[in-house]
Amino acid sequence: MTTPISQPHRKPDLCAMSDNSAPGGKQTSSWIETPAHSDFPIQNIPFGIASAKDRAAHPCTRIGDTVVDLGALAKAGLLSDLGIAPEAFQTTSLNALMRHGKPAMRKLRQRLGELLSADNGTLRNDAATRTAALLPVADCTLHLPIEVGDYTDFYSSREHAFNVGTMFRGPENALMPNWLHLPVGYHGRASSIVASGTPLHRPKGQMRPKPDEPPVFGASKQMDFELETGFITFGGKPLGQHISVEEAEEHIFGMVLFNDWSARDIQSWEYVPLGPFLGKNFGSSMGAWVVTLDALEPFRTAQPEPEFQPLPYLQGHGKQAFDIALETVLTTPEGSETVISRSNFKHLYWSMAQQLAHHTVNGCNIRCGDLLASGTISAPDPSGYGSMLELSWRGTKPITLADGSERKFINDGDTITMRGHCEKDGLRIGFGEVKGTILPAL
Amino acid sequence: MTTPISQPHRKPDLCAMSDNSAPGGKQTSSWIETPAHSDFPIQNIPFGIASAKDRAAHPCTRIGDTVVDLGALAKAGLLSDLGIAPEAFQTTSLNALMRHGKPAMRKLRQRLGELLSADNGTLRNDAATRTAALLPVADCTLHLPIEVGDYTDFYSSREHAFNVGTMFRGPENALMPNWLHLPVGYHGRASSIVASGTPLHRPKGQMRPKPDEPPVFGASKQMDFELETGFITFGGKPLGQHISVEEAEEHIFGMVLFNDWSARDIQSWEYVPLGPFLGKNFGSSMGAWVVTLDALEPFRTAQPEPEFQPLPYLQGHGKQAFDIALETVLTTPEGSETVISRSNFKHLYWSMAQQLAHHTVNGCNIRCGDLLASGTISAPDPSGYGSMLELSWRGTKPITLADGSERKFINDGDTITMRGHCEKDGLRIGFGEVKGTILPAL
Repeated sequence: MTTPISQPHRKPDLCAMSDNSAPGGKQTSSWIETPAHSDFPIQNIPFGIASAKDRAAHPCTRIGDTVVDLGALAKAGLLSDLGIAPEAFQTTSLNALMRHGKPAMRKLRQRLGELLSADNGTLRNDAATRTAALLPVADCTLHLPIEVGDYTDFYSSREHAFNVGTMFRGPENALMPNWLHLPVGYHGRASSIVASGTPLHRPKGQMRPKPDEPPVFGASKQMDFELETGFITFGGKPLGQHISVEEAEEHIFGMVLFNDWSARDIQSWEYVPLGPFLGKNFGSSMGAWVVTLDALEPFRTAQPEPEFQPLPYLQGHGKQAFDIALETVLTTPEGSETVISRSNFKHLYWSMAQQLAHHTVNGCNIRCGDLLASGTISAPDPSGYGSMLELSWRGTKPITLADGSERKFINDGDTITMRGHCEKDGLRIGFGEVKGTILPAL
Repeated sequence: MTTPISQPHRKPDLCAMSDNSAPGGKQTSSWIETPAHSDFPIQNIPFGIASAKDRAAHPCTRIGDTVVDLGALAKAGLLSDLGIAPEAFQTTSLNALMRHGKPAMRKLRQRLGELLSADNGTLRNDAATRTAALLPVADCTLHLPIEVGDYTDFYSSREHAFNVGTMFRGPENALMPNWLHLPVGYHGRASSIVASGTPLHRPKGQMRPKPDEPPVFGASKQMDFELETGFITFGGKPLGQHISVEEAEEHIFGMVLFNDWSARDIQSWEYVPLGPFLGKNFGSSMGAWVVTLDALEPFRTAQPEPEFQPLPYLQGHGKQAFDIALETVLTTPEGSETVISRSNFKHLYWSMAQQLAHHTVNGCNIRCGDLLASGTISAPDPSGYGSMLELSWRGTKPITLADGSERKFINDGDTITMRGHCEKDGLRIGFGEVKGTILPAL
């Protein structure tokens, strides 16, 4: 069925022997080669969905440039004692696995860490299972990891909210009166969330470029990205009950990179009074790898000091942010690449725990596989603004790319790639990338 | 397994012998008794999900006060030649049936009409299948009919938008500049849509009752209903493609009653600039019966004349509205019932076809089982306003109930029941009811 992999990843003797904690807590490295500066050392063990030629889509993990098919490991009996239903390993989304809950997913990640550990021969010495389970990532198609139930998008970067507010209302009235009191959010569209790499057509729609004239119909002239992350939930509590800030992380599986594509001209005409709709729901791109909160734990850090303490149900305890460096690259149709933004998840004013506590304070239920996205993550410095709207200041200050061309917004054929990783004391844990190309309007 | 039903519905000789067209197009009546003024004559044949004692939840239809279990009919082989997978009749939502598409659902409805027709003995003379399939509705639990993928709520009643705008901005600026140009809508929360009859706790949250003071936390003091209908979609087109006004109804399965519960004090503090969120997502109630567009066809009528023609992609052709009388009843904890609003679906300025065309004009994809709700349906006359906000004019004019008590908003223990039906030339097609009680905050 599958192309045998020549060697249990080429040069096991060249494995990067890092000294950081694997999921099992032991100091370990893997028998699978992990390139220097890989986002995916044995300490990561993210989850995704991959397929390959003659190989159906299955839950997978990744180490270095190798995808590990959990469907194949399960068939070989290596995951049979974890209390996880065998069929959950043979599905095309992570939802069935996640429904087993956080303790089961922790056991699974722990087991994968053991099987991939340099001091464990179970998989390394089992040629048939290795052949069935290990694939070069270059040979794989990476799919949407989650079948998203409900998708919520927050607006939790103070810098982003301030920038946008300044453009539209001036700096004195930039932040709305509610902004520092609660994590503003809105419901997004789940149906149009696509896997990284899926191209999207420039949306058409109604807009009003001249405020004194009637609206017009056409292709958006203000295509934008929004640099975001999102978190995926386990099941929550029954409808009517609340998840507190303290409880929130127990309901979070992991994080993904997320690009909330936005058509600013459609959005600005439609959004009063009920919020963004067609300016957003033509497509959003999700990264292929869900990185668990456990993997991110070494990079936990404090969120920005609040301007004032919010109401008690939103008051945080301890470090609720993670130090995740984020960058956005614009690649022109000719292939010229420019890093147009460098930001960091830690700049967010409202934490994931606060977002989830707010979302459920009225009794709203979350389900396994819901996505809660951060909103645009802009850094304090203009070089770290997380959207073209901000980078070009509503089109008034075009940005210059590496090839000398300019952009106010995104051109047809441009590709936006977002990357994210944490790095500390020689350990790097990353997300890979989320990428998408804007095609001409249909 | 099941309790035998004493008689194939009591007095078949007393069947209401109406002369209207059944799904098959023939002039017919049913051998199952249908009370006068029932919402569910043989011309309706709606779809829902019902369970009973010792009987799992299955797709069902309803005629008069009798629920007909399609799972039982399918097991008896009566639905086996329709091109529908047998397992689709044994599931707990209508989604698997609907995935077979509109032609298959039409065939199914046609077949049910034949089996229930007075001139057809197949089911009437098959005592075992009758016993297995027919149940008094009073013995059934009616469930949420659809597993909703994405839920969108529109704002398509000009009267409602004008009333709310007048309260907040005065009559000169009541309608936002975009309102007459496009059907304003926003994404709602699918996870908290509940079956009719499910009680909901009054939500808690953040609100700012005094504009010059900080926000406070507590139970909402402005609980409201919104009288709505919703339509359920079949699958649409691939992401990037558009469904035109002309094509729209081919993608619509049917309609339901819908109560978009709203906590006005939470909503008014949170909703700028990204729209309603916690003021809505604590719960929405869906009626049990999906009435097909085919059943509603005799009641097709013109929508209100537009103030001006919208852009071409929104221009309608022919009659796109339906004459559906709607009423809202408030029942106090003591049991006193008052009809507090009488409205009609035909008042909506934007049709379902226009809503769907707008929703997809940017390429946004719809999926089988999506819900698109109308927004509050207010009549021109104040007696037909579709929310407490409007009926009590933001609490300034309390309404008086039948027992003499007053309401500005909904009290704990109050039940809101919405009903809807069409009636013309002796034919009545209805939706039954959607009902919910507000319990005290937890």
